[in-house]
Amino acid sequence: MSDVQSVVDAAERAYRSGLSRTPAERRGWLESMSHALDAERDELIAIARDETHLAAARLGGELTRTTFQLRFLGAEVVDGTHLEATIDHADPTWGMGPRPDIRSIRRPIGPVAVFGASNFPFAFSVAGGDTASALAAGCTVVHKAHPAHPRLARRTAAILIEALRSAGAPDGTFALLEGEDEGVQLVQHPLIKAVGFTGSTRGGRALFDLATSRPEPIPFFGELGSTNPVFVTRSAWQRRSQEIADGYLASVRLGRGQFCTKPGFIMVPAAVGAPQVIAHAAIDQPDEPGLLLSSRLRDSFEGALDALAATDGVETLLGGPSGDESAPLTLLRVDATTVLENPELLEQEAFGPASVIVEYRDMAELDQLSTLIGGQLTSTVQGEPDDDLGALLPALAERSGRVLWNAWPTGVTVSWAQQHGGPYPATTAAGTSVGAAAISRFQRAVAYQGLPPELLPLGLRDDNPLGIPQRIDGILTLPAKGDDGR
Amino acid sequence: MSDVQSVVDAAERAYRSGLSRTPAERRGWLESMSHALDAERDELIAIARDETHLAAARLGGELTRTTFQLRFLGAEVVDGTHLEATIDHADPTWGMGPRPDIRSIRRPIGPVAVFGASNFPFAFSVAGGDTASALAAGCTVVHKAHPAHPRLARRTAAILIEALRSAGAPDGTFALLEGEDEGVQLVQHPLIKAVGFTGSTRGGRALFDLATSRPEPIPFFGELGSTNPVFVTRSAWQRRSQEIADGYLASVRLGRGQFCTKPGFIMVPAAVGAPQVIAHAAIDQPDEPGLLLSSRLRDSFEGALDALAATDGVETLLGGPSGDESAPLTLLRVDATTVLENPELLEQEAFGPASVIVEYRDMAELDQLSTLIGGQLTSTVQGEPDDDLGALLPALAERSGRVLWNAWPTGVTVSWAQQHGGPYPATTAAGTSVGAAAISRFQRAVAYQGLPPELLPLGLRDDNPLGIPQRIDGILTLPAKGDDGR
Repeated sequence: MSDVQSVVDAAERAYRSGLSRTPAERRGWLESMSHALDAERDELIAIARDETHLAAARLGGELTRTTFQLRFLGAEVVDGTHLEATIDHADPTWGMGPRPDIRSIRRPIGPVAVFGASNFPFAFSVAGGDTASALAAGCTVVHKAHPAHPRLARRTAAILIEALRSAGAPDGTFALLEGEDEGVQLVQHPLIKAVGFTGSTRGGRALFDLATSRPEPIPFFGELGSTNPVFVTRSAWQRRSQEIADGYLASVRLGRGQFCTKPGFIMVPAAVGAPQVIAHAAIDQPDEPGLLLSSRLRDSFEGALDALAATDGVETLLGGPSGDESAPLTLLRVDATTVLENPELLEQEAFGPASVIVEYRDMAELDQLSTLIGGQLTSTVQGEPDDDLGALLPALAERSGRVLWNAWPTGVTVSWAQQHGGPYPATTAAGTSVGAAAISRFQRAVAYQGLPPELLPLGLRDDNPLGIPQRIDGILTLPAKGDDGR
Repeated sequence: MSDVQSVVDAAERAYRSGLSRTPAERRGWLESMSHALDAERDELIAIARDETHLAAARLGGELTRTTFQLRFLGAEVVDGTHLEATIDHADPTWGMGPRPDIRSIRRPIGPVAVFGASNFPFAFSVAGGDTASALAAGCTVVHKAHPAHPRLARRTAAILIEALRSAGAPDGTFALLEGEDEGVQLVQHPLIKAVGFTGSTRGGRALFDLATSRPEPIPFFGELGSTNPVFVTRSAWQRRSQEIADGYLASVRLGRGQFCTKPGFIMVPAAVGAPQVIAHAAIDQPDEPGLLLSSRLRDSFEGALDALAATDGVETLLGGPSGDESAPLTLLRVDATTVLENPELLEQEAFGPASVIVEYRDMAELDQLSTLIGGQLTSTVQGEPDDDLGALLPALAERSGRVLWNAWPTGVTVSWAQQHGGPYPATTAAGTSVGAAAISRFQRAVAYQGLPPELLPLGLRDDNPLGIPQRIDGILTLPAKGDDGR
């Protein structure tokens, strides 16, 4: 029996065993994982520094976010809003004919495969959002480790497994697998019911194709790529050029540009010297030295810079391929007319500290640019209250998961409203991998018709023992507050 | 320019134009469609009788359900629960670091292709649940007519288009296309953003494969097939054998067995003569004469009966292939042991008035049967309050969209809790094609970060001008009731 088979069998058994556990118990598992990771903070950050070349402060912030996320999603398990409990009592006068008693609630879909990303060794890796939300949904997780941080993956997994065991979760609730072949087998295994993935468009699409061509296709929640364009209005540039240049550069440089939400393009008004202002601001704040996550990523980064610079009219203002191990801040410049003639430029993601400054002449060009961008995780407007934005915001909402106003796309908060996912290729399916709504990707609804109260799931009983929101005969109804204020 | 191109272009323009319309306007469109169909009731039923061979009473009930569904989903548009409006105010004390103001709401995904079914010429066809829920979501619809009822499809479409026009909807909000090639082009058209489908497993899977292999894959909400097993406990049979036999036969016979929720298998206790009781009840209530929907369906039906009878141990109690145009009630019988050795039997759907009686010896066999069924729209238990059901109900919930207790699966009410969709092959994606939740299949969430109130969608403003539920800083909050009691 292969490793994959035994690990998935254990995940299946743990999933079934977990179905009878209470929301409070499940919250306890997530909190136990959170506390166990916090307790090993120094050791984890040290391993991560060694394997990723990321700075300790950056890694510390990411670990804080990761353990917060586990507690946040644990609280959601008990809150129960995501269960969408719905109760329709029998109604002999119903408009289409008598209605039976019918009630529905969301339930977990089964063991889930999660593929970690290299650029977030904590928050989108072993203990990241896909793992946390799948466990919160009631699923079990088999995590395919990213080969860029194997020691960290193994250590994190060992901590999680021990934390789950000590909190009373069934053995097999979480497991780690390594190896590319093993990942492929995992996606094709009949007991695996969904996949969470963060990574490259090419690798993600290949796994997506595997997931959808199975005899039983399964949902593939993949985050593949995004160039996160920023649109600066003429008046915003006139009033805040230095602030915008500094904010943009900070966002491009954060984590050496290795964020899926890094602004890859900024559209600025022409004929005001914006590229020069930005380049000077960059020179005033010299690069901190540092390597990219891996030499493979550095090679892709340099390849992407070459591809961008190969288009006539694209000039390199700063940086460019270094020819050595380093990856300096790289700024390119191009006229909007060139982009409008070569719209495929807008889809070229250079994963690393590079971004393209696009000079537009008028709002017509800005509008055209906004309709040529592909599916995005984020789009941003830097504007002023009195700007006439025309159709800009609707065009961006059409193509993006998150639309920002006078903010920068890097730094993704974990909250109820967060949406980290957008039209293809940003993600392969509707849904978010960050925030409370991430849970529902790993659930589906089941309706129960005519069941006596003692056979119903607790969340669907009239006496609402779980204290969750219920939509009753069409009316959203909040639970009565208990002694503890809930 | 092909028909498909011009129709999809118009659907895209109508979609964009519709984005600025209010929920109340959109509700008006759905109500206008409902009233217009009701006004042409006699004519529509006459055409449908002629093309489908279904009885007038059956078609009348279906049309009532269809026009009710349009009004029901229209009311949902205004209710706004499905928008999942979520407001997180900025919070400098947030556990992972300061949180910006971020708000999310669901929005339509674009023009949708809908493929009608032959067996529900109203409720799952031109004006059916997929069309109604896509329009309620804010999408536009291009409907591919089913070739089994072309005149009805054209007449229904003409009524809908005129009703939409008279209610002020943009031209192109709904359109009809005919032809198999046109259907394929529709699924592959870059401006089409989702597909709703009800039909055969083979045809549905082929279109699913097209949808997921596009350069930009799109969600395919296909309902493919279901055998809707019924599990009768020994004590239920002992106490209510005649009632169960009659209820089962009525459900199998309804609409000449041409329902996706027809019980294809009934598991009964062995050694109590259950197959004979059922066969006698069938003979006591002779078949009403009538044809199946089409000669193509009749051929498939007879082929499915031959395939079932080809397994050693399956015997035909009643009916069987007729060799002529008719499709008589057909009952087959088999021991559970034979099914456990040939579990693929349980996936053989005979679309028409046929069902298989499976005799089980003990609860262990019943449990085993419950774990061998594939993904189902429905599963049913006929039981008694004092039955020890073991793991039966969890096993059925695991594999089904709807679980029934002492009821019959045909007759699918349209309500908030309805779930018509289950694990593959019942449906190709999570979601329901009936009920309020059908709307959300055609929407996705967008988050807005840092937007001033005047730039936010109405549903995300603090003053809540749409009067919809909002989750505010994690707390689900109901709208203040207005003068009209809303």
